[in-house]
Amino acid sequence: MNPYEHIKIQAYEANMQLPQLGLVLFTFGNVSAADRSKGVFAIKPSGVPYEQLSPEKMVIVDFDGKTVEGKLRPSSDTLTHAVLYKHWEKIGGIVHTHSTYATAWAQSLRDIPIYGTTHADHNTVDIPCAPPMDDKMIEGDYEYQTGFQIMNALKERKLSYEEIEMILVGSHAPFTWGSTAHKAVYNSAVLEAVAKMAHITESVKADAARLKDSLIKKHFERKHGPNSYYGQ
Amino acid sequence: MNPYEHIKIQAYEANMQLPQLGLVLFTFGNVSAADRSKGVFAIKPSGVPYEQLSPEKMVIVDFDGKTVEGKLRPSSDTLTHAVLYKHWEKIGGIVHTHSTYATAWAQSLRDIPIYGTTHADHNTVDIPCAPPMDDKMIEGDYEYQTGFQIMNALKERKLSYEEIEMILVGSHAPFTWGSTAHKAVYNSAVLEAVAKMAHITESVKADAARLKDSLIKKHFERKHGPNSYYGQ
Amino acid sequence: MNPYEHIKIQAYEANMQLPQLGLVLFTFGNVSAADRSKGVFAIKPSGVPYEQLSPEKMVIVDFDGKTVEGKLRPSSDTLTHAVLYKHWEKIGGIVHTHSTYATAWAQSLRDIPIYGTTHADHNTVDIPCAPPMDDKMIEGDYEYQTGFQIMNALKERKLSYEEIEMILVGSHAPFTWGSTAHKAVYNSAVLEAVAKMAHITESVKADAARLKDSLIKKHFERKHGPNSYYGQ
Amino acid sequence: MNPYEHIKIQAYEANMQLPQLGLVLFTFGNVSAADRSKGVFAIKPSGVPYEQLSPEKMVIVDFDGKTVEGKLRPSSDTLTHAVLYKHWEKIGGIVHTHSTYATAWAQSLRDIPIYGTTHADHNTVDIPCAPPMDDKMIEGDYEYQTGFQIMNALKERKLSYEEIEMILVGSHAPFTWGSTAHKAVYNSAVLEAVAKMAHITESVKADAARLKDSLIKKHFERKHGPNSYYGQ
Repeated sequence: MNPYEHIKIQAYEANMQLPQLGLVLFTFGNVSAADRSKGVFAIKPSGVPYEQLSPEKMVIVDFDGKTVEGKLRPSSDTLTHAVLYKHWEKIGGIVHTHSTYATAWAQSLRDIPIYGTTHADHNTVDIPCAPPMDDKMIEGDYEYQTGFQIMNALKERKLSYEEIEMILVGSHAPFTWGSTAHKAVYNSAVLEAVAKMAHITESVKADAARLKDSLIKKHFERKHGPNSYYGQ
Repeated sequence: MNPYEHIKIQAYEANMQLPQLGLVLFTFGNVSAADRSKGVFAIKPSGVPYEQLSPEKMVIVDFDGKTVEGKLRPSSDTLTHAVLYKHWEKIGGIVHTHSTYATAWAQSLRDIPIYGTTHADHNTVDIPCAPPMDDKMIEGDYEYQTGFQIMNALKERKLSYEEIEMILVGSHAPFTWGSTAHKAVYNSAVLEAVAKMAHITESVKADAARLKDSLIKKHFERKHGPNSYYGQ
Repeated sequence: MNPYEHIKIQAYEANMQLPQLGLVLFTFGNVSAADRSKGVFAIKPSGVPYEQLSPEKMVIVDFDGKTVEGKLRPSSDTLTHAVLYKHWEKIGGIVHTHSTYATAWAQSLRDIPIYGTTHADHNTVDIPCAPPMDDKMIEGDYEYQTGFQIMNALKERKLSYEEIEMILVGSHAPFTWGSTAHKAVYNSAVLEAVAKMAHITESVKADAARLKDSLIKKHFERKHGPNSYYGQ
Repeated sequence: MNPYEHIKIQAYEANMQLPQLGLVLFTFGNVSAADRSKGVFAIKPSGVPYEQLSPEKMVIVDFDGKTVEGKLRPSSDTLTHAVLYKHWEKIGGIVHTHSTYATAWAQSLRDIPIYGTTHADHNTVDIPCAPPMDDKMIEGDYEYQTGFQIMNALKERKLSYEEIEMILVGSHAPFTWGSTAHKAVYNSAVLEAVAKMAHITESVKADAARLKDSLIKKHFERKHGPNSYYGQ
């Protein structure tokens, strides 16, 4: 049996959720699933249509971005995934999409303000928009630098990747992560829904107010933390 | 035979309508169905995906929020349902969703103005947005207090729960109710449609006028009241 | 054989297109199909869900609004249909919906400006929005008066029902018509698409210009008139 | 065997993608596929519903717009296709739709600004909106002149049809092209997605900034040019 079969299946299934959830057009997205004991992750091959995917086509890559197994070329965003896996030791899955509303916010270079409890159920802060990289970083090893750009944006806001599992890369599109590939896909769908609601909220009320702190705290703690009481 | 089977089936079927009507993402919603003769209601278990639901998984809870039967933990919003059943003696079903447009209005803290006959076919007033609770209520028994927040918002506007079967909880999301769980789901879908239309109406005309009284009266009475002539 | 079977089937099939085209929620719409040789039309029964419809359930009504055959009560909008059939001798089908974008324009009390060739392929003028009726008409025979309100709005703009097969009833929703029920449904879908595009056009450019006359003429004549060259 | 069968099949399959991708309502679109060795293209017959299409119904037309084979009348936009095939020697497919967001931008007479990497993955410039033709051209051989209007709009901006495979015809709707009919359909879907995102971007931030040059260059070269590394 192939030693990477479990993460190939995870990555395959998580990738297939993207079109089902309406988060991708054509091949504009990718998911990876890591096996930390082996120091590798399985990721979508570059540019292959979702309907042609299979677990066997997933590419196995190490945390330095080197292909370990697989006949196809891995996603062009592979180095961004590798950097994040290498530095964030507790994540098991990463998703990148160009989902419509989250991408529009990324293009506006604005953080998504926390306007309601749907947002607070998942994060306690505005969803950060990392600024575009400077030109040298872009001209250099772009996808590798994108990973650092994401990490730096969290650092500057003194946020941990465990507190917030989603970010907008300014002028580009969202990345999300989580303990598993499946959880990272969940976060992508949540981000898209929150982005759409925030857009409509501002349309309905131009100077809408951020959610007050007591509600942010309450809703986040309902689903997370020691006294959470959501789910089974 | 299980004495609660009829409301378990009602609650199950009504919950399954939410994803079919596009009113929920993942588990962001719940429906309950009451049996007043027994003083209990059946409600969705917390955090269980819709595709894994079955009538047997519904949890039976009394009007004080105490679980009467069921192995799973009931919806985290159960106490809100309990409070409303306890105080509003004629309702048989309650729905909570985070549907996109209704939630965006809730986040804007605005009532939804009555702009047309689609709205007036169901209500004669602007759809109220209850203000967010004060911090003490939020830090206390939050879901229980949400029930009172909803009741108080109607009282302050001198509205009866029989006149208006839907409300926005400010910064949060909508709740709807009705004589049955099925009717409450119907009201959720109507609210989402009305919320979307009101948003577009204001986009098309910033200072759109509320519907005039004669049309509000006419349309509401077509569907409701002693001389209604809609339906069979 | 039932003498009205052909129009019952036409009305049934045309009614079933409304949910398929995304033009109705629940029962918020109705289609009728006329047989002018018999002076009657078949129309959807009031408040019956689309999934429970069948040709046999269609109600046969004459042009004065009197039920000729059928066990169910006809659509609450039946008198509006009757008035239009009575006065507009060349139409064979009528549709009423509360489709999202067209209804939002009706709620804004604005005509839909002719912004592009999609519009001009079907009409040469802004799509009229009839003003709401005065209070006496509303309190009187409302649906009957709605028919006259539609006819008067065209008359005031010196438009013929053969030139323009769609209208917004202000504060209410759209009506469309055509030579057949099927054509009237087609017009409803076109109206909704044009209404959505016009809304986005104004969003993208606040002072968007109306289509120039030469393009209006060219596109309309491509599809209509003696030298049309669209279709087979 | 029919000498045109391969392009009839290509044109048929590409036409059928339009409704699947949500790019057309009814018959508001058409695709053609060329065989340059024979100097002809296969195109959708005019006004035939997609569900009634088959490869045999495609019409074969030469680059002067003369029908070579086929019982049905070709698309009313055939002359526009013919002009582009005649002058742009490297294209093998053309698509015309009235897709919602791209058409709204065309109606606004604005170019679509390049706001993000989704756009830059496909083009390095704002998507041009050709001005409406002058009245004489419109009253003359309209579809033929539309082809020249498209070519002239690129020329004036010093753009090559190989650099940019999509355009808005002002007041009308988009045209796209590519090496194959399939690629041209792909471009239509990309254009619609980019048009929607740009609209939301401006809604979220009225004075959104164009993407900076280094990112435009980087993203375009990832997918195109000698050092591209996207896909297999």
